[in-house]
Amino acid sequence: MEDPWQRAYDFAVAVARKAGEEIRKAGESEIRVMTKSSTVDLVTKTDERVEKIIIGSLKKEFGEGTHCFIGEESVAKGEPCILTDKPTWIIDPVDGTTNFVHGFPFVAVSIAFAVNKQLEFGVVYSCLEDKMYKARKGKGAFCNDEPIQVSDVKDIHKSIIISEHGTDRSPEKVTKIFSTMKRILCIPVHGLRGSGTAATNMCLVATGAVEAFFEIGIHCWDIAAGAVIVQEAGGILLDVDGGPFDLMSRRMVSANNDTIAKRIIKEIEIFPSTRDDAPIEKK
Amino acid sequence: MEDPWQRAYDFAVAVARKAGEEIRKAGESEIRVMTKSSTVDLVTKTDERVEKIIIGSLKKEFGEGTHCFIGEESVAKGEPCILTDKPTWIIDPVDGTTNFVHGFPFVAVSIAFAVNKQLEFGVVYSCLEDKMYKARKGKGAFCNDEPIQVSDVKDIHKSIIISEHGTDRSPEKVTKIFSTMKRILCIPVHGLRGSGTAATNMCLVATGAVEAFFEIGIHCWDIAAGAVIVQEAGGILLDVDGGPFDLMSRRMVSANNDTIAKRIIKEIEIFPSTRDDAPIEKK
Repeated sequence: MEDPWQRAYDFAVAVARKAGEEIRKAGESEIRVMTKSSTVDLVTKTDERVEKIIIGSLKKEFGEGTHCFIGEESVAKGEPCILTDKPTWIIDPVDGTTNFVHGFPFVAVSIAFAVNKQLEFGVVYSCLEDKMYKARKGKGAFCNDEPIQVSDVKDIHKSIIISEHGTDRSPEKVTKIFSTMKRILCIPVHGLRGSGTAATNMCLVATGAVEAFFEIGIHCWDIAAGAVIVQEAGGILLDVDGGPFDLMSRRMVSANNDTIAKRIIKEIEIFPSTRDDAPIEKK
Repeated sequence: MEDPWQRAYDFAVAVARKAGEEIRKAGESEIRVMTKSSTVDLVTKTDERVEKIIIGSLKKEFGEGTHCFIGEESVAKGEPCILTDKPTWIIDPVDGTTNFVHGFPFVAVSIAFAVNKQLEFGVVYSCLEDKMYKARKGKGAFCNDEPIQVSDVKDIHKSIIISEHGTDRSPEKVTKIFSTMKRILCIPVHGLRGSGTAATNMCLVATGAVEAFFEIGIHCWDIAAGAVIVQEAGGILLDVDGGPFDLMSRRMVSANNDTIAKRIIKEIEIFPSTRDDAPIEKK
């Protein structure tokens, strides 16, 4: 029983690839869009269908009773978003729905697995680029089976930082988001980027393409898989206030090292966000 | 003499591909970085070497006396940046040098060709994605030989807009850039993106992945090839004040249509930028 979750890990990779192929195929046919909470937060038929494919396959393979599931679409429909000690799959079927609808080239399937509230592995399939990122606790991180590693840059002035504007357009949040970005740009850093998907952003930290990614307002399913991948690539995760990373807190800094993470944290203007596991009114 | 520049067009595609292969190879070996004007505006040995390869091939094929050349690296070294009526190649050997140095996945070779001050064709090779974009005046735009077309979105609320923070960190400019981005985000639009290369950004407009790209401070070599590609994909180019597009003005809005372009222009806070063809102190 040294490696109890290897089968689950391998299965997750296969399911992510299958889901990504579905997304690619759907992208080639006409995309039907429904409004979820606003025009910004798009959800497509594909999103729901792909989550059903993923959760259906996992339930069939691992049994409905023993494993739990936290998925973006299920939670949107009112299912609980509580991480227990039970083996739990945390799934974003289509991270980057806006990108998907527009054909912008970053769209990812994100599948993570936690036991006793600890993340065991994460798989992010950037399906339009055909890049399969994966990592298992203690076993390293990979992109298309090649080992990946975070950047060794310690000088913030030589860094690229990635973040997102999010989907909430409330003036207080937007003002703080832009103010933070401006402060970071003017440290100065080499540049700011944004791919439009948190899962891909974390993989860009893991490969060393950027030094850090931070965001307030993301959900556990956006970052759970990426969290394992960043850590196994040698990077770190912190809360935006410098405290320990909390998967359900909806805020995170992922970086190549402590020096970069703490320098970024100095500039982040924090705004309130309701926890993913809050008992009422999650959004 | 119906199609006098077809040979030049075909040659440009071949040269762009060769240059892109050099860039990819260089990315795999160690990258040596020199400082140009600031830590932000990076230039690598590769940049200079690739421009030499491109201009060398073109001079050999088309003769040094008859064709003129405007290249990012040559201009940085003091060569003139004046567009005359002579057949003129406008070249950015590595658009996205910062991305290149960091391994961020958007790096492009940009080659355009103008006669009588009119752009005849443009080639943008996004070499890490292996996407060859090309367009010839009146003959359509293509990505890897498939025809491409701008998005048909007319409702600004359903758009993704792409822009960049640029390399200048002067407070007045940075403030206006962020203020403009915030105004556009809060129209609201679906999202803002930034790939880190103007040439790729224009190709993202041409494929319909985003509705518009605008920037103040870009140079003619960043956008000349993309300008043909956007127009041949059905899009339009304007000045940031709504007037006619001027290649040497260092400012541009490229969009899928007039409606989107004009809506964006309402929100752009203009700051001064010296023309590319200004007689002294170009930077």
